[in-house]
Amino acid sequence: MSEAAKPPVYYELKHVCAQTGARRGVVHTPHGSFETPAFMPVGTQATVKGMSPEELKGMGTGIILSNTYHLWMRPGPDIVQAAGGLHRFMNWDRAVLTDSGGFQVFSFSDRKHISEDGVQFKSHIDGSRQLLTPEKSIAIQNQLGADIIMAFDECTPYPASREYIKPSLERTGRWLERCISSHQRPQDQALFGIVQGGMYEDLRQESARITTAFNLPGFAIGGLSVGEPAELMYRMLDATVPLLPANKPRYLMGVGSPDYLIEGSLRGIDMFDCVLPTRIGRNGTVMTSHGRLIVRDARYARDFTALDDHCDCYVCQNYTRAYIRHLLKAGEIFGLRLTTWHNLHFLLHLMEEVREAISQDRLRDFRNEFFAAYGYVS
Amino acid sequence: MSEAAKPPVYYELKHVCAQTGARRGVVHTPHGSFETPAFMPVGTQATVKGMSPEELKGMGTGIILSNTYHLWMRPGPDIVQAAGGLHRFMNWDRAVLTDSGGFQVFSFSDRKHISEDGVQFKSHIDGSRQLLTPEKSIAIQNQLGADIIMAFDECTPYPASREYIKPSLERTGRWLERCISSHQRPQDQALFGIVQGGMYEDLRQESARITTAFNLPGFAIGGLSVGEPAELMYRMLDATVPLLPANKPRYLMGVGSPDYLIEGSLRGIDMFDCVLPTRIGRNGTVMTSHGRLIVRDARYARDFTALDDHCDCYVCQNYTRAYIRHLLKAGEIFGLRLTTWHNLHFLLHLMEEVREAISQDRLRDFRNEFFAAYGYVS
Repeated sequence: MSEAAKPPVYYELKHVCAQTGARRGVVHTPHGSFETPAFMPVGTQATVKGMSPEELKGMGTGIILSNTYHLWMRPGPDIVQAAGGLHRFMNWDRAVLTDSGGFQVFSFSDRKHISEDGVQFKSHIDGSRQLLTPEKSIAIQNQLGADIIMAFDECTPYPASREYIKPSLERTGRWLERCISSHQRPQDQALFGIVQGGMYEDLRQESARITTAFNLPGFAIGGLSVGEPAELMYRMLDATVPLLPANKPRYLMGVGSPDYLIEGSLRGIDMFDCVLPTRIGRNGTVMTSHGRLIVRDARYARDFTALDDHCDCYVCQNYTRAYIRHLLKAGEIFGLRLTTWHNLHFLLHLMEEVREAISQDRLRDFRNEFFAAYGYVS
Repeated sequence: MSEAAKPPVYYELKHVCAQTGARRGVVHTPHGSFETPAFMPVGTQATVKGMSPEELKGMGTGIILSNTYHLWMRPGPDIVQAAGGLHRFMNWDRAVLTDSGGFQVFSFSDRKHISEDGVQFKSHIDGSRQLLTPEKSIAIQNQLGADIIMAFDECTPYPASREYIKPSLERTGRWLERCISSHQRPQDQALFGIVQGGMYEDLRQESARITTAFNLPGFAIGGLSVGEPAELMYRMLDATVPLLPANKPRYLMGVGSPDYLIEGSLRGIDMFDCVLPTRIGRNGTVMTSHGRLIVRDARYARDFTALDDHCDCYVCQNYTRAYIRHLLKAGEIFGLRLTTWHNLHFLLHLMEEVREAISQDRLRDFRNEFFAAYGYVS
């Protein structure tokens, strides 16, 4: 990637919260711009489960994430490329980010083998033996054509020893160099590097130095929200974020609970993604301004109020807990649509409130008010 | 029901096709009017599987059908009544028709017992022993609050002997009298009687005479499309429809394939319902102007054309066969939404074309053109 060329994705700072140092901005991409801090709904298999593109746009979604591993296995990157790329394949004209596939293959802990070359694993579709390398991940992501693509890294487990983490983050650094070398579309796809380092502040900092040595258009923090206590994650963020360049977007991977979104924003994160809102929605749990609510519960059988009395989404304006419970109990698709819709709206609206609180230099106050109402222990 | 009171549902004739005698009209209900001949999407459990009310309205749905048996079992009519009735429960402000529950309990052929009183059967939810009678069916339908409710009848199987059919249709006539007597909301719910009679023209006519002896706001033909050859069904329609009053809507129950919709309209039918478009859609089959297409098939993996090149629905304007196939193979909800959407649009659009052909006195010509393009043997 030439130093002189304008990157396809770039960050524009709008305001820094005087109370917290959190930042509000805009990320510009070849498929439109989105305000940050931003939550990215996850469309694993080229669809955000249950939702249409128009519905996602209607609630203000500016970028979605899709999974390289899943699209590689099915329908295959050749078909997505032949369709004209992921945007056209799935009828989504706003920004898309693809992950590297690494998270999925590293999650198959009993069926993988890691080497300097890459990771050998077995397909979850047909059990066939596959090899994922930095070059392969980038080649697939070049075929898929997302606006932001991710470096192939090892997302290290928790807990893990220093002795495991240190060589892993060094290998992730070498893999990053291979990702950059093999990237064929730097003019219209922004490659983000990923900081690892487990739960060790000095190793996080070492990984941040290795990663930011490359002049990439954005940086991510991976390997967090993998089972560690919240305070430990926050310490890792505090150790890492200050080392990331201020003029590039910062993406905290796999994070989507309301407390993590707010605490991450407080610490200078710009982008988040998580399957949480769609996954718990399909299981009959919704997020409300008063905390989580399991709408499948029998107690809601005759509750003709909205999921959240403070919510102005389509679901809360038109449907009752009793009806949604009925749909879920009856196994009706529309029930999953409604809980998914509400949960995504809840998080996208939360990020609007976070951005507004940053503009008003009161994100700490907002955090305290939200935590109290939601029932989080501060 | 008083002779003088204006019925809650009434038929307005607009035009009779000079070529065929088919009729175009409007049915007026307490929740709006719909043009006929009309197809009614089925919302078994207070939702048309996969679809939102707004989507149904957007494609011109004026009335949906919901199933009394299913709503009785779950969530129970008390909950629907407490919600303010079926319309409010499911956020549907256009017309609703409920069936009597008879079709479902008679379908449980190995677990039912028919008597003069009604039908004993076992619940499909918990196996509990239940009794459905004319009075019970009407009481539940009064609680659900649909605009059109159906008499409790025996939908006789095919094949069945004259010796079985004749006492059954006579009992259905006696049950109709009990339905009328127990109906508590004739001012805002229109009770339709149902003609039975198996596949015997004279018994169809006898049932029609028994049923139309009551001054009801509409009449249905039941017990057809139960496995008999198409020509036999058409003969039964030819024997029955002329005996139904011309100033009342005529409803052919459980019919929804394109050929049956056109042939039924040709014979003077105004209303149809069927799970076909939603059910085959969920199984990966769509209807097109060139006939059925199994979009799950491997041959469509790289087919980047629309489901139907003649269709202007949301699905055909925005998605390819390859993408929809991918979604279906991957088990994604959005795939079911798209196939269901297209199929419903296809039938609702077909009925628009049928109505237009009636207005232009060329329904026979339209039928021949459609059959040739769809691949039906004429």
